[in-house]
Amino acid sequence: MPSDHLFDQATRVTAGDSRWQGRTSPDYWAFVGPFGGVTAATVLRALIEHPQASGDPLAVTVNYCAPIAEGVFDLDVRLAKANRSSQHWLVELTQDGGDPATLATAVFAERRPSWSHQPAKPPEAPPFEEVRRHPDSGMSWPQQYDFRFIEGRPQLGAGPADAPHSPFSKLWISDRKPRTIDMLSLLSMSDAFFGRVFHARGELVPFGTVSLTTYFHISRAELEAENITRVLAVADAKVFNRSYQDQHGELWSPSGRLLATTTQIAYFKA
Amino acid sequence: MPSDHLFDQATRVTAGDSRWQGRTSPDYWAFVGPFGGVTAATVLRALIEHPQASGDPLAVTVNYCAPIAEGVFDLDVRLAKANRSSQHWLVELTQDGGDPATLATAVFAERRPSWSHQPAKPPEAPPFEEVRRHPDSGMSWPQQYDFRFIEGRPQLGAGPADAPHSPFSKLWISDRKPRTIDMLSLLSMSDAFFGRVFHARGELVPFGTVSLTTYFHISRAELEAENITRVLAVADAKVFNRSYQDQHGELWSPSGRLLATTTQIAYFKA
Repeated sequence: MPSDHLFDQATRVTAGDSRWQGRTSPDYWAFVGPFGGVTAATVLRALIEHPQASGDPLAVTVNYCAPIAEGVFDLDVRLAKANRSSQHWLVELTQDGGDPATLATAVFAERRPSWSHQPAKPPEAPPFEEVRRHPDSGMSWPQQYDFRFIEGRPQLGAGPADAPHSPFSKLWISDRKPRTIDMLSLLSMSDAFFGRVFHARGELVPFGTVSLTTYFHISRAELEAENITRVLAVADAKVFNRSYQDQHGELWSPSGRLLATTTQIAYFKA
Repeated sequence: MPSDHLFDQATRVTAGDSRWQGRTSPDYWAFVGPFGGVTAATVLRALIEHPQASGDPLAVTVNYCAPIAEGVFDLDVRLAKANRSSQHWLVELTQDGGDPATLATAVFAERRPSWSHQPAKPPEAPPFEEVRRHPDSGMSWPQQYDFRFIEGRPQLGAGPADAPHSPFSKLWISDRKPRTIDMLSLLSMSDAFFGRVFHARGELVPFGTVSLTTYFHISRAELEAENITRVLAVADAKVFNRSYQDQHGELWSPSGRLLATTTQIAYFKA
């Protein structure tokens, strides 16, 4: 079903069995290339729409090897291994036949009913409507989202303090134009946290995600049943050292269900 | 420098520029194939010993597509993209020219000096020597480690309780025959936690790691300077649902330095 939502336009892919095409979107542009969340979602869309795809997305890892230039790109999609329960995919994003700019692996799995238990506790938060929308910074991709910080609002004018600021954030995330959350937008939102180093330092510094891994903890049917347009998200960092920082995060449904966990390692210059 | 430590024998690789060979080890055998940590370390060894390798291991993701059969295997190693600061690698493990049994990506990076900050607090723990060694279960690979549980010792005879047990564990991990910890053993240890579902259910159930991601937060020189044979490790799970569980963990030096973080998604039947 075609959608005119900017997110669906930005993650559109065409044709292809083993080779798909996409195009970068000015609406989701970051410092030196497309917002990584939309690149990840575009890769996942090619897999979900692939005729051989079976089961639900379970795990996605995206390695950002080099900036993607404005314009078209190719997705070389390969089903490396499949059995009755799972599929292992490999995707290489290239432009003009060059080296991969993005290298991704994904696991799809049959989400069969099982014992279910959620030891993690949902974060406490006031309702979305009661939290103030974070103002636009002028950058392209954040304008496609509605960020509502409950804790850890970025204070980018503050600058380095005597002691570093906390890298923790708790916020509601919604598409700016509300869109029912599916696996694609959930994956994109898992990369929609601001760099933890910006929070800790109180300033923008050169920054880029190098590798992102996101796990889905619900089936597609379960996510559809939630029928939501926003998630409650938390993100934190454990260490900044030798030009790299970690980040780990959780994406929760308003009903208190853990939808996805995510982690990434990112370059910074400070 | 050749070593007769079982870990070095189990992760040995030979020859090759783009194609390396390895062999499974009965010393690190799990339920239906080699212990995943040793498979990951074998992949990483092929990269570290690769003539084109530059920089330090930063991020490794290993997708376990299918059990590896006892015997020899090939590692198809490809440097997908490189620049002055980082390298992106792709490794496929196959046997007899079949589909990949393991698919891995790795990022190597120049760990240049930078602002450094460790917001995560080291777990409190009594010294290694004061904690009792966990008894052998009879399985092969755990016998190669010395596990000393401080919290969350597995109670596999307990069985399911009215409420699930905590999936959290805190423990010292050392090679059974002490071996100075390097990136290889650190990666292997990042997969050396028992299945969180075993802890939560108080029983062994069918289980298998599907995808593992580990980030290194120190340079090789920094790790060598620690000069340690054991790590303090914590692991926990956030959710068990529809046949899959997450796991996230931290590996700390005795001096209180966060060496690596790890996450994995694993299949279980319960």
